[in-house]
Amino acid sequence: MKKIKNALVAQSGGPTVAINASLAGVIRGCLDSDEITTIYGARNGVEGLMDEKLVNLTEIFRDDGEALEMLKATPSMYLGSCRRKLKSMQGDSSEYDNIMEIFRKYHIQYFFYIGGNDSMDTVGKMSIYVKRHQLDVCVIGIPKTIDNDLVITDHTPGFGSAARYVAASVLEMAHDTNIYNTRSVLIAEIMGRDAGWLTASSVLARNDYSQAPHLIYLPEHPFSKEQFLEDLRAQFKVREHVVVAVSEGLRDAMGHYISAETSAVDAFGHAMLSGTGKCLEGLVAETFGCKVRSVEINVLQRCAAHMASAVDLEESFQLGLKGAAMALEGRTGEMAIVRRISDAPYQVVYESADVQQIANAEKKVPDEWINSDGNDVTEEMITYLKPLVQGQASVPMKDGLPYYLSLDADI
Amino acid sequence: MKKIKNALVAQSGGPTVAINASLAGVIRGCLDSDEITTIYGARNGVEGLMDEKLVNLTEIFRDDGEALEMLKATPSMYLGSCRRKLKSMQGDSSEYDNIMEIFRKYHIQYFFYIGGNDSMDTVGKMSIYVKRHQLDVCVIGIPKTIDNDLVITDHTPGFGSAARYVAASVLEMAHDTNIYNTRSVLIAEIMGRDAGWLTASSVLARNDYSQAPHLIYLPEHPFSKEQFLEDLRAQFKVREHVVVAVSEGLRDAMGHYISAETSAVDAFGHAMLSGTGKCLEGLVAETFGCKVRSVEINVLQRCAAHMASAVDLEESFQLGLKGAAMALEGRTGEMAIVRRISDAPYQVVYESADVQQIANAEKKVPDEWINSDGNDVTEEMITYLKPLVQGQASVPMKDGLPYYLSLDADI
Repeated sequence: MKKIKNALVAQSGGPTVAINASLAGVIRGCLDSDEITTIYGARNGVEGLMDEKLVNLTEIFRDDGEALEMLKATPSMYLGSCRRKLKSMQGDSSEYDNIMEIFRKYHIQYFFYIGGNDSMDTVGKMSIYVKRHQLDVCVIGIPKTIDNDLVITDHTPGFGSAARYVAASVLEMAHDTNIYNTRSVLIAEIMGRDAGWLTASSVLARNDYSQAPHLIYLPEHPFSKEQFLEDLRAQFKVREHVVVAVSEGLRDAMGHYISAETSAVDAFGHAMLSGTGKCLEGLVAETFGCKVRSVEINVLQRCAAHMASAVDLEESFQLGLKGAAMALEGRTGEMAIVRRISDAPYQVVYESADVQQIANAEKKVPDEWINSDGNDVTEEMITYLKPLVQGQASVPMKDGLPYYLSLDADI
Repeated sequence: MKKIKNALVAQSGGPTVAINASLAGVIRGCLDSDEITTIYGARNGVEGLMDEKLVNLTEIFRDDGEALEMLKATPSMYLGSCRRKLKSMQGDSSEYDNIMEIFRKYHIQYFFYIGGNDSMDTVGKMSIYVKRHQLDVCVIGIPKTIDNDLVITDHTPGFGSAARYVAASVLEMAHDTNIYNTRSVLIAEIMGRDAGWLTASSVLARNDYSQAPHLIYLPEHPFSKEQFLEDLRAQFKVREHVVVAVSEGLRDAMGHYISAETSAVDAFGHAMLSGTGKCLEGLVAETFGCKVRSVEINVLQRCAAHMASAVDLEESFQLGLKGAAMALEGRTGEMAIVRRISDAPYQVVYESADVQQIANAEKKVPDEWINSDGNDVTEEMITYLKPLVQGQASVPMKDGLPYYLSLDADI
């Protein structure tokens, strides 16, 4: 009798618009393989996995192509998430033993974890455990993060859609801000603690009639309040209405957050920020006495599926498919990546990379892509970003409003 | 020789997604009339009018149907805005004399002012002046406001699109908020100082899998922090993740704003608010110690043309056309309104109403449309709101991003 081989997939970390598209890709790839009998999903990442909270995805999606299409368009995490990082294996390996016990019970031969660099840490540790114990399980990582801060892959699923939302919002706010005949400053605060990719993407708001955002500040470059005020003075010489894009994670030359008074840390010890925009709003009001408004582009930048980039959703789906193919080839401890072949026409290929090189590393914006004044990005950045926001993904609608897929009957 | 008759149009008050659709309607209506030689637009409302800052709209749009279509889809004010309320005519009528002098100079026979109730005050005053001096000028108001607080008209242009943005955002944030396996509260703070229509529209986020927002608080109903905490306790008995929609203008039984510590007043003496959500966020964190996030749904609710309701844009255009027709019939001191004939199928007619009955009045949410606990809206409200958010308006795109019309070459 043929050995039963099942697959298990889970999602982890913060939400994006595209993480379900990768889930859909994994499901499609597994459904299309004769090797795999059942695809399970674990609720709430490794946390739900350890509690054996599994759902049978084969039952849900096998005969329902429409549901799989809706899953592709659904923001956030269909299976739920967690912020749990597995313990180091030194000393206590009970978490891993527990997981492998569940893998044995459900005949899991292929495990897929979709997440950011903390999740790739989990993929790395699990694959080391598996190799060490010579277990017959392939552990595969699929990237996601709006921060675009994973190394090796050209960019990350979810980033393009978040970038599109940020750019469209900044453009629309530029229309909103310039209506009165009096000097004004609008400060858009954008997510990205340490990596400025998403803040940089606000540059795509510029077109042949709008130069907004007129100033862009990334966390990679030391921020000086004095220089910021000088930059505004220079802007006021040429325009009345200035739109500024700032990262939530701006720091001064000493490395202190601009919003230091409100900083706290999350479960991984990362600083949690808010208030950079508000802080600068106060500074501008005090210095220039003009109309100033700061807008925190909040959680919508990571969940506004109604502005998803078609390119992003398709690539995210393809990375899911690629992950399934990698597992079926017997690879383990690897992550599916995007490699860019050319900018124009935009072309990519999907490849496999060692997850150990990706886990816990962080890709920041290179110095050369920030202008020398530290208040804008370069043409190289624009060339890099532009292909990622192309195309309006189709949005499932009901009664005039977006309508997505939900595992729970009542959220 | 036939007398030259020209038209002049201006926009005033806060931006909406649909105020340019009404402008497009006025332009279309005037272009199609043999009576009117030239259509001028005044920059920045009556302020630019008094400074003779006029643009020739006939030249821009006469032979460019595509530009008129783009204008229809463009958020905020193409002509710019002002917050200037004309002085009372008692004693000093110099502002009115000045305006009429400009009207004479440019042969203005038809004047259209697109705005909210402060702007209708201007329309009312100008039409009284015109009648008193037996001048041959028709003064017509076209409504707009995301607040939906104008009386007599069934609803206002711009409201449906703002409602659609709010509802879609609350739905997407509900997807975002329920991913972790721990109790959480999300508080969405929505615009509307005194009228709760826009906050109420968050109810449209509900569908057959999502009951979010689970609690809705309007400014028309006295807000009690104690009752709010009780409402949350009741919610926690049935769900872990609670989504709450609150108006920025919530007040306690004594009439004090919940965010009283941060209140200020604008040029019209209206209280300017922010911080209701932040204030309640602190209260929830303190009381329940759970994850809580407040999101101020900021200026995007009034400028996110990428989420415009097709019904809203078309009606706004029709109200512009109706205004033009009213002027050509020789009416003055009147505003174009929408009257609803039926809910299902949704049918409206466009009519004319005395602007004196509209200026400075405010339509609040009726008591009967708020549930008795003051934490939700009724079925009548849903029936009223639903038709207004139907249809995705087409969004002009360039390079993957929205691309609108701008009078200025560089905003």
